[in-house]
Amino acid sequence: MKLFVVGFGCGSRDGMTLQAENIIKSCDVITGYTVYTDILRLFFPEKEYISTAMRQEKERVELALKTAADGRNVALVCSGDSEIYGMAALAFELLHLYPDVEIEIVAGVTAALSGGAVLGAPLTHDFAVISLSDLLTPWEKIEKRLMCSAMADFTIVLYNPTSKKRADYLAKACDILLEYKSADTVCGYVKNIGRDGETHRILTLGELRNESVDMFTTVFIGNSQTKIISGKMVTPRGYRNV
Amino acid sequence: MKLFVVGFGCGSRDGMTLQAENIIKSCDVITGYTVYTDILRLFFPEKEYISTAMRQEKERVELALKTAADGRNVALVCSGDSEIYGMAALAFELLHLYPDVEIEIVAGVTAALSGGAVLGAPLTHDFAVISLSDLLTPWEKIEKRLMCSAMADFTIVLYNPTSKKRADYLAKACDILLEYKSADTVCGYVKNIGRDGETHRILTLGELRNESVDMFTTVFIGNSQTKIISGKMVTPRGYRNV
Repeated sequence: MKLFVVGFGCGSRDGMTLQAENIIKSCDVITGYTVYTDILRLFFPEKEYISTAMRQEKERVELALKTAADGRNVALVCSGDSEIYGMAALAFELLHLYPDVEIEIVAGVTAALSGGAVLGAPLTHDFAVISLSDLLTPWEKIEKRLMCSAMADFTIVLYNPTSKKRADYLAKACDILLEYKSADTVCGYVKNIGRDGETHRILTLGELRNESVDMFTTVFIGNSQTKIISGKMVTPRGYRNV
Repeated sequence: MKLFVVGFGCGSRDGMTLQAENIIKSCDVITGYTVYTDILRLFFPEKEYISTAMRQEKERVELALKTAADGRNVALVCSGDSEIYGMAALAFELLHLYPDVEIEIVAGVTAALSGGAVLGAPLTHDFAVISLSDLLTPWEKIEKRLMCSAMADFTIVLYNPTSKKRADYLAKACDILLEYKSADTVCGYVKNIGRDGETHRILTLGELRNESVDMFTTVFIGNSQTKIISGKMVTPRGYRNV
């Protein structure tokens, strides 16, 4: 049968696409990380769920593939998009274990987009998305990507800006960016996008350097043109005479 | 009244979020570029539409703001996301003309995500999004962003890869990338994502250099780890022991 890897957006009921909703409704089993299946259980209480613990990514995807190979249609759910720091690639990487399973990837609204909409319009122009988690990526590579993104004058979106073990990573990232960007660069962050307790703040890069954010936060660093209009973070496209 | 700037996704009926659908249904008027209002007219034939021609971005947004200022709820619709190369920023930039209007930005699934899902999972890891259109951006800035993205080993998504006047821009972009990336780098492109005539191809960067694509195409250039699995373009996240 078929494995759908489904991005369900930020976690609000209406942040998911109609396609994601239809697929989740039509599947026999919903699998995923416990926090995500708990969210979906509220919206689709009648479905069957199989959840796995944090950091059990390989086991989670193997179980989803096995369940599909056993003859059931399975939705493996990811918050935001199914590709971006999600499970879609791993499903293809493990497909050799259950080669008869067909995989379909279903896109969702990632935090760069849903968080950007909360702040205003920071992502109008070219941008880069970088995770500060060095669990799976050497920190030197992350540093190089930050440096290159600053040199390119991208708007930059940071995922996983911190964790218990990486409390100082956002400050370290800001220090790299401050070598290339003004301390006045307009920045913003959004916590718990689309969910209870959503909060956001717009501030300068210099202020962000000393800000404390948590792992449920997405951080936005403006490009050289980003400005504040009516309290919103706005990166202009560059239409003339505006 | 209120102006909603709404990203409606790739253009398939079920590619939009429930939020976008609900807002479009609840608004008094739908405004936007003719091609987009024509798409939405198929889905919501009962609504009132006001459409504007290509390149009339400023006039389009002014009209939307004016219509809202006149006391109607307006949805200004953008394909993909409302921020990314969309109209969200311009709405804030022109808000001073009608300062009583309230603006709400509604995110949608941009082509990087919906196109990525067609190709497999190219965007698992850090990535950059760059438009090759030099209508509003100097080509030198675009070249620098391409160069920095290649140095950073980002997966790169190219929007607006070509036009009648810019027939050789994709080749020019590939030439810059080829200075830093192997000609064997896995690439892909998707045309007419989610719509009639959707096609895609996976190929090498060397092949992409000589490929002819049109303006309805989104192009993906893998990072150094991107590979082909079961005919799909897959960028691994880096889970150990996979």
